[in-house]
Amino acid sequence: MTAADEAHALEAVILDHGTGARLSRELVEMIAQELGSVYLGEMEDSGIVAVAADQLALTTDSFVVQPAFFGNGDIGKIAVCGTVNDLAVIGATPRYLTLGLILEAGLPIAQLRQVVRSIRAAAEEADVKIVAGDTKVVGKGAADRIFINTAGVGEFRRPPLRMASVQPGDRIILSGQIGNHAIHLLSIREGLGYDQRIQSDCAPLNGLVETLLSALPNGAVRSIRDVTRGGLCAVMHEYARATTCRMEVRQADLPVLWETTMCADMLGLDVIHLANEGCLALFVASDQAEAAVSVLRGHKYGRHAAIIGTVGPRSSAGFAMVGKDGSLREIEELLGSEIPRLC
Amino acid sequence: MTAADEAHALEAVILDHGTGARLSRELVEMIAQELGSVYLGEMEDSGIVAVAADQLALTTDSFVVQPAFFGNGDIGKIAVCGTVNDLAVIGATPRYLTLGLILEAGLPIAQLRQVVRSIRAAAEEADVKIVAGDTKVVGKGAADRIFINTAGVGEFRRPPLRMASVQPGDRIILSGQIGNHAIHLLSIREGLGYDQRIQSDCAPLNGLVETLLSALPNGAVRSIRDVTRGGLCAVMHEYARATTCRMEVRQADLPVLWETTMCADMLGLDVIHLANEGCLALFVASDQAEAAVSVLRGHKYGRHAAIIGTVGPRSSAGFAMVGKDGSLREIEELLGSEIPRLC
Repeated sequence: MTAADEAHALEAVILDHGTGARLSRELVEMIAQELGSVYLGEMEDSGIVAVAADQLALTTDSFVVQPAFFGNGDIGKIAVCGTVNDLAVIGATPRYLTLGLILEAGLPIAQLRQVVRSIRAAAEEADVKIVAGDTKVVGKGAADRIFINTAGVGEFRRPPLRMASVQPGDRIILSGQIGNHAIHLLSIREGLGYDQRIQSDCAPLNGLVETLLSALPNGAVRSIRDVTRGGLCAVMHEYARATTCRMEVRQADLPVLWETTMCADMLGLDVIHLANEGCLALFVASDQAEAAVSVLRGHKYGRHAAIIGTVGPRSSAGFAMVGKDGSLREIEELLGSEIPRLC
Repeated sequence: MTAADEAHALEAVILDHGTGARLSRELVEMIAQELGSVYLGEMEDSGIVAVAADQLALTTDSFVVQPAFFGNGDIGKIAVCGTVNDLAVIGATPRYLTLGLILEAGLPIAQLRQVVRSIRAAAEEADVKIVAGDTKVVGKGAADRIFINTAGVGEFRRPPLRMASVQPGDRIILSGQIGNHAIHLLSIREGLGYDQRIQSDCAPLNGLVETLLSALPNGAVRSIRDVTRGGLCAVMHEYARATTCRMEVRQADLPVLWETTMCADMLGLDVIHLANEGCLALFVASDQAEAAVSVLRGHKYGRHAAIIGTVGPRSSAGFAMVGKDGSLREIEELLGSEIPRLC
């Protein structure tokens, strides 16, 4: 390696950052320093953590967000929020994350630093610690700038929430507006000019879930799902299959930002298929649904919460939407995607 | 999506496999089916597991192995073994893995199936369960066929092994031959013709570690490290920094396959820098070192175990090797790599 190569290594990720030798170590030390107090790793091959429950939630998610940097966030923020939310929706308290980075040679070190700072900020907000990490570098063209995997460990301090608990008559609630994240990213990618007015909803929702579960009687909240890839439609079909119930949603009650509706209409997209990063679908006992919405609306990430429908009778699995004109429409599961890949 | 696209989706991974809709679900169902009984996932956003310890080991590793398929294994086998070994070397019993797949559009479904079958076989051998998974698809050219992240959870049934326990006078042991994995992969990549005679050492070593720790008095095994990226040299420097001791190794005692020495010499490489996937560096109290080697040699993955050196006095951190001619050589930490990226 020449002195010029070594100088370049201060500005951009190079293959030698991934070899396990000195440059690897220095890159990892930089990342650990930027993570600050949210990083509990000890530079052993594994992190060691204490757990106070005999039942844990484990989850994993890889993030290949495109673009990796957007108006009000980046892939680092999403990588923390996505995994925190997957733990929260099963009723667990998120505690620990692992962090796996795959970096494309040529990625500016400044961009890597920004991603790591976003990871730190999101981890601080969600009150989770990063206990183990791994960094790999691949050649230019062998990855798309940066891919992140986070795996998460949560502790159960109350019984897990399960899809099977959902019952006919339960109300379906959305915790926030749908479609904003997808439209924000699409707008940046396609230069549509909406990304200032429509922000991503990316947020850690464990605080919102904890607030809700603490406020309502045990068992009133049957099940929660993070509405991400595939959008509301994918979640409704997932629950329809799992419960054999028909999911009945009223289009007029969907919380959607006016600009998002307009942009989606213009693009010929239906907001029920669009990805979100900070929106929950909740299934709640009917006599507690109004109370749930009230609690959610009192939290900064639940201000737009609304009851959007009802779980119908069993043995008629499917997803139906009552249109704004009163017509009933059966909505099939999409085979693939309506729009280009975002995540 | 046309009928032709849909037919193509049976043969190769396409972007629509990553959208969260029906094709995504069918791909995940195929993977879950191939994993069979090693998969504990419940199709919720998180897996739920029981733990029998109040202290856990957590680790993560991303695998970007090139080539992804080699003579006696593939990226799936390495992805399980690497994480199992990271848990084992800290003294934990590996229990649960998460599995994150990033697939490049165009990857033949048959290759994906083969990788998943390797994951299953390795998980069965290591006696670990896969409790949560995630699959993302990126466009052609945005990844190198397949990247895998595995995060792992291990239970501590005895005190963790820590680098700080290593003491001057301890013996340094290698559990197996070094360099075979790197030379095997290099030989395939460069068409050198050695890959039939030099096999990768990739293996789950938790059984070997458990056998050793059970056989020796508590505390005799101070610390263990998986010798992967960066090879023996990186491990020696890591321990030198952590302990402030000088690591003294005798070249003549390094277990190296004759063909590997020959091939490395031909390529101008030193085996101490080469990556392995099934070889441990162990630091053992001097009066138990012979016993440790004897136990290791009785196990199928430790047949070539050997004492290779000694931990020197404190405050002289570094790595020195006594050559076959008796000369003493200080070995600097590499800045980057001697060879093209393998992992």
